[in-house]
Amino acid sequence: MLQKVSVGRKDLNLYRGVVGDELIDEIIDLAKELKGYRFAHINSTPFGGGVAEILASFIPLLQSVGVDIEWRVIFGDRQFFDITKGFHNGLQGADFSLTKQVQERYMGNLLFNARQLPHHYDLITINDPQPAALPYFIPHSKTKWVWRCHIDMAKPNRQVWDFLRPFIEHYHLAIFTMSAFEPPDLDVAIDIITPAIDILSTKNMGMPLDFAKKVIANQGVDIHKPLLLQVSRFDPWKDPMGVVKTYQLIKQEYKGIQLAFVGSMSQDDPQGWQMFADISEASLKDPSIYIFTNVTGVGNLEVNAFQRASTIILQKSIKEGFGLVVSEALWKQTPVVAGKAGGIVLQMHHELGDYLTETIEETAKKVCHLLKNPGLAQELGAIGKKQVMEHFLMPRMIKQELEAYITLLQRSR
Amino acid sequence: MLQKVSVGRKDLNLYRGVVGDELIDEIIDLAKELKGYRFAHINSTPFGGGVAEILASFIPLLQSVGVDIEWRVIFGDRQFFDITKGFHNGLQGADFSLTKQVQERYMGNLLFNARQLPHHYDLITINDPQPAALPYFIPHSKTKWVWRCHIDMAKPNRQVWDFLRPFIEHYHLAIFTMSAFEPPDLDVAIDIITPAIDILSTKNMGMPLDFAKKVIANQGVDIHKPLLLQVSRFDPWKDPMGVVKTYQLIKQEYKGIQLAFVGSMSQDDPQGWQMFADISEASLKDPSIYIFTNVTGVGNLEVNAFQRASTIILQKSIKEGFGLVVSEALWKQTPVVAGKAGGIVLQMHHELGDYLTETIEETAKKVCHLLKNPGLAQELGAIGKKQVMEHFLMPRMIKQELEAYITLLQRSR
Repeated sequence: MLQKVSVGRKDLNLYRGVVGDELIDEIIDLAKELKGYRFAHINSTPFGGGVAEILASFIPLLQSVGVDIEWRVIFGDRQFFDITKGFHNGLQGADFSLTKQVQERYMGNLLFNARQLPHHYDLITINDPQPAALPYFIPHSKTKWVWRCHIDMAKPNRQVWDFLRPFIEHYHLAIFTMSAFEPPDLDVAIDIITPAIDILSTKNMGMPLDFAKKVIANQGVDIHKPLLLQVSRFDPWKDPMGVVKTYQLIKQEYKGIQLAFVGSMSQDDPQGWQMFADISEASLKDPSIYIFTNVTGVGNLEVNAFQRASTIILQKSIKEGFGLVVSEALWKQTPVVAGKAGGIVLQMHHELGDYLTETIEETAKKVCHLLKNPGLAQELGAIGKKQVMEHFLMPRMIKQELEAYITLLQRSR
Repeated sequence: MLQKVSVGRKDLNLYRGVVGDELIDEIIDLAKELKGYRFAHINSTPFGGGVAEILASFIPLLQSVGVDIEWRVIFGDRQFFDITKGFHNGLQGADFSLTKQVQERYMGNLLFNARQLPHHYDLITINDPQPAALPYFIPHSKTKWVWRCHIDMAKPNRQVWDFLRPFIEHYHLAIFTMSAFEPPDLDVAIDIITPAIDILSTKNMGMPLDFAKKVIANQGVDIHKPLLLQVSRFDPWKDPMGVVKTYQLIKQEYKGIQLAFVGSMSQDDPQGWQMFADISEASLKDPSIYIFTNVTGVGNLEVNAFQRASTIILQKSIKEGFGLVVSEALWKQTPVVAGKAGGIVLQMHHELGDYLTETIEETAKKVCHLLKNPGLAQELGAIGKKQVMEHFLMPRMIKQELEAYITLLQRSR
């Protein structure tokens, strides 16, 4: 029912100490220009995944400087979300059978949502394919429509894309994470805005290293031995079983090595639970493999501790929209070895780029190299933090989004 | 499939600094007496609720002193868990329709589990009603069977209890949380052991108050105004809507008061999601009501921070097995106002007993009294910590359980 999402309070001014006054003052000036306009972001879920995580910070940070912005989630039945999961994979190139029935179910759900959408918004940003057809059902509104796409659409499944493209061409602007993600034949104004992390959230806030070590020790990890960590959903695109194999290769050289997975499980994800079961089995056979999830109470603050206290962080993705965890890890000065995929590449420039890998063997080799050279690992950590500071903090993204809003709203005057 | 649960490592010796050497040495001596015996705990779920939380500490702590103990969970289909939820409520006095079909489905599921249970265990503790009939299907084993009941069975639904009682009478011992929980007509040896908390877990470990305050500030809470907190599932027995009403009463006197709920959501709990939606709605109307859950990444370490940084903790239960959160809160020296129900009464003796309440009005009155008298609140916090230290820490419970095992095993020699 296009439910509004309740977000807590945040304060952008707290970023002055991090990014300096100039950027925050610029944002406040932009916010003033937007006085009187009403904004909304719409996506498919209030929690789970990077988009919800970004909005949970982005929305209240904007509210704190006076922008009138709300966050709403669409309502859909079970079949609808099965279909949009298919779309999501299809837009990334996977097969999908787009029957007449599927099309009708998708449109029926969005028509239902469209009828409930209040008409007072001046600009609405729709995130990802699930609610993408909404504007189509509100043809005569004065609202400016922005489509914010977080996935790699360079080689979409033709059938899915041919179906969705006309809906997307109803938008005034489409925003992608990187140019390489644009579909080949989209006739809409395009902007590129890279996602960012909120370093004042519990996931990224400062934490004494001693405390972080105590936290992971209390979770049963031996803090006197090296620890590899992958933080991610249990999803084939994140290749968790590849991580286990990488670890087993490394273990041939480093007997004491440990591996932890921290993942969040979602309600409706049988595939995720199956992968969780597979890794649990590996962990029963090898007590140096740990697996932690939100269902046993491991939350953002524990993730923060794990990212700080780990020796090396893996993000062995095969396909990746952005991969917020990479910036999260680098912000904490922990070196990262990651899959050469999607937005991860953006986050690992220069020296860090040497630690982008494509195979299990290569990943194991890079990890061993860092284990052998702790000075180098430390150096990479410091470089990583600097890169995140320059490119991947929330205020930079907020400024770009507000500029995009202003351009769009002025165009219509 | 009676899956083994993978538990991390813990070390009971770390409790020496908390409870002293004597108790830990006693436990180590008991563990030596149990050398060569094999133990298991069986329950219905590896996570969610107090039993799983206790076992997640109890099992690895015992393993750390050489006890050969494992944790297994039964497998059941969806109908089975609907039935056992009915049994659970029925044993606490609720209505339940015990058809022939229900009985057969329950027994069929447990027969299936019984066939998969390895035979090498010397003593098995079965937790709560879900797996209670297991021993019935393993009639000629040499295993000693203990039934650990965590719920209040003083006034069970007659039909449910008449069905389950013969299964329970197959046990060598039944352990209850308090005498008042015993059913009226059970012909089995009985022991009383109170649950306990693990203060070395991330939920309860030491944390600087400054850090705890930063954590809750980053969640959007105003740390300069008083905060009420209830940590619990969204379950009618925990009366979350009663908590909202209590808060609204208090707000008439204390305009700045804030209320936070921290709860964990489980997969399969439509009632819980409905209550969550109701409170979310209240929170949209009143920005001083906050609601946090595991699905948005709020985990044990955040709970720890919230329990430390709150002004007063509520546990407005109407029915309660034990209520671990009460001891958790008191351990952190935060005063508690709680429902006069079940095991909560055990945890709030003497001066603390004045803060056991039975109505919304009474609860609001007690909270206001503490808000008016911060010195008194602090005093109660200190008394609470002392009581938890004396009665509700994990080593005390471990010692009692091991003594019970020894008594049972010796009886058979």
